[in-house]
Amino acid sequence: MKRLNNDLSSIYGDVNAWDFFENQLNSLSPTKIFVLTDVNTNKHCLPYFFEKTGLKKQVQVLTIAAGEVYKNISTCVVLWNELSQNGADRDSLLINLGGGVVTDLGGFVACTFKRGIPFINIPTSLLAMVDASVGGKNGVDLGSLKNQVGVIKNPLQVLIDIAFLETLPRPQLVSGHAEMLKHGLIYSKAYWDKVQYFDLDRKIEASDLIWESVLIKNEVVTEDPREKGRRKTLNYGHTLGHAIESYFMEVSQKNTSTKALLHGEAIAIGMILATYLSYRLCSFPKKKLETITSTIISFFGKVSFERHDIEEIITLLAYDKKNRGGTVYFVLLTDIGQYKINCTVENKLIFEAFDYYEKS
Amino acid sequence: MKRLNNDLSSIYGDVNAWDFFENQLNSLSPTKIFVLTDVNTNKHCLPYFFEKTGLKKQVQVLTIAAGEVYKNISTCVVLWNELSQNGADRDSLLINLGGGVVTDLGGFVACTFKRGIPFINIPTSLLAMVDASVGGKNGVDLGSLKNQVGVIKNPLQVLIDIAFLETLPRPQLVSGHAEMLKHGLIYSKAYWDKVQYFDLDRKIEASDLIWESVLIKNEVVTEDPREKGRRKTLNYGHTLGHAIESYFMEVSQKNTSTKALLHGEAIAIGMILATYLSYRLCSFPKKKLETITSTIISFFGKVSFERHDIEEIITLLAYDKKNRGGTVYFVLLTDIGQYKINCTVENKLIFEAFDYYEKS
Repeated sequence: MKRLNNDLSSIYGDVNAWDFFENQLNSLSPTKIFVLTDVNTNKHCLPYFFEKTGLKKQVQVLTIAAGEVYKNISTCVVLWNELSQNGADRDSLLINLGGGVVTDLGGFVACTFKRGIPFINIPTSLLAMVDASVGGKNGVDLGSLKNQVGVIKNPLQVLIDIAFLETLPRPQLVSGHAEMLKHGLIYSKAYWDKVQYFDLDRKIEASDLIWESVLIKNEVVTEDPREKGRRKTLNYGHTLGHAIESYFMEVSQKNTSTKALLHGEAIAIGMILATYLSYRLCSFPKKKLETITSTIISFFGKVSFERHDIEEIITLLAYDKKNRGGTVYFVLLTDIGQYKINCTVENKLIFEAFDYYEKS
Repeated sequence: MKRLNNDLSSIYGDVNAWDFFENQLNSLSPTKIFVLTDVNTNKHCLPYFFEKTGLKKQVQVLTIAAGEVYKNISTCVVLWNELSQNGADRDSLLINLGGGVVTDLGGFVACTFKRGIPFINIPTSLLAMVDASVGGKNGVDLGSLKNQVGVIKNPLQVLIDIAFLETLPRPQLVSGHAEMLKHGLIYSKAYWDKVQYFDLDRKIEASDLIWESVLIKNEVVTEDPREKGRRKTLNYGHTLGHAIESYFMEVSQKNTSTKALLHGEAIAIGMILATYLSYRLCSFPKKKLETITSTIISFFGKVSFERHDIEEIITLLAYDKKNRGGTVYFVLLTDIGQYKINCTVENKLIFEAFDYYEKS
């Protein structure tokens, strides 16, 4: 049975999830229901949502452009105004139907509109299911700085239905897979071994692996909601990964021949770099480093970095939300499932890690 | 002793308040300290703040333009960027030194920057001391709609030093007085009788009355933090008051010969209208209605309304945050200190109330 109910979360991953959704709706009896989609989920996911809920005639659909570049305050302003103009009040409900951009941004809009209205998240991407669905973080980017503005608040309910994954283009699946691999690395060898072979075509097994990722993340954030210790492990590969993602977003905006990276693609590189740093600083086993590197590259391919790219990425590190007093802290591993938080790393070693990645 | 410590608030109104401020700072040991001012408090209040704290060399001062029209998301974006660029992290502290615009907006910026950094409010206007200081509401306006975007979260500490009031122009004092009068009307005849004679030149008495207002508001919000019942009484005079304030702000932007009203001026009119509605719908004593009307007009003067003004104001009512499902709810009184929430009022009676105000 895939149901998780605690102080932090109320997450449903069962085939019966839609029944719980209906119960929630009945007990809430919102004055109005708004569904937030992006242009893709509007086309590919909304029909299935209507089919499952029968809400077609009762909801007002709000639609934003698709993509991380629209996860900003300007999009929030448009939505706050649309909610106002359509008579949303404090007892109206916002349902966020989409990937991480829609659930992060929609969650923030709901938490701040009239100082907070109820919201439900229905993640439609693998990444949003295994990552954004748990922990209550939401927010938007500020320029190229990711998630600089947001709050922490849980949705009333998270509904995970893997049927939505069939609507996703392949690269987007790969992106969520990166976070699942991370859960393996920070949590257990047993899960890492299984999650390497994640394959959406084997539905039942895939559904179980997704749910196991949700449980891992939930265990971590429940133990440490304010990110004082263990929750920092979720940042594995993200310190450099976020900087890489920000850098490519900036470059792609100036220069159309360079493509922005998907979140998972950037994090995949960040995990290889972090595992190399773990090997150099925390005696992480070399053999395992090599397996992890080749596994990740087999899924995500490789990206080239020039020296000046790496310099810019190191500069961007300083803006990471998780730093304190200008020092950059890394989560590293002594082995799979064994972590060490608040590690500092010299820039020289970061260059060395990129060099290792380049040569792999 | 003027100290209030509970789950919701940590407010200091003593002469020793600055000692508690220093203690808080020492136990927090923030990585950086930012002080938010507007151009007025930068000039008139910051020197006193430095004198009391000795922090002149350790803080970074951020300054915004003065006035309600700047209490918007654009100003937040500027501040979020300034915090980023100046290396603020999650353990940096924001001190909001100013009136309600600075504490409301600065509180929202702090609650949302990197998903929340600690903040301290030092209200410098009477309105901010007796109203914004308690209850944890913060936020910004959306166009002409007041406080449409925000969250509820308490500052680490609120420090009330009435020395700041000496820096205020007279009309701004009158504005805070309106909220104190409201506290009397919704809470007790005894406080109403005293607060009518509030006079800043009688320092000790004025300080006691301000503190009593803080205690009244605190009692109300502690009993009902999520505004399900009693907290709604704080909205007395605000349903129409906010609509009047919004309307005059809009008109003043289009037509420079019309001046925007101060918050307190609009609320003062709203209280007379609400007391008239109370008389008509809840048997509020006529004699007291007349005394209240003349008392308020003696402080705030009178504003003229044409029929089309009133029509527009009624249209704006529908946007009030506190409504549910399109119905406008009023707080009314059966007597001073005796309230009735969730009253509905026909538009015809609202016109009648304006008519009563006009003829008073």
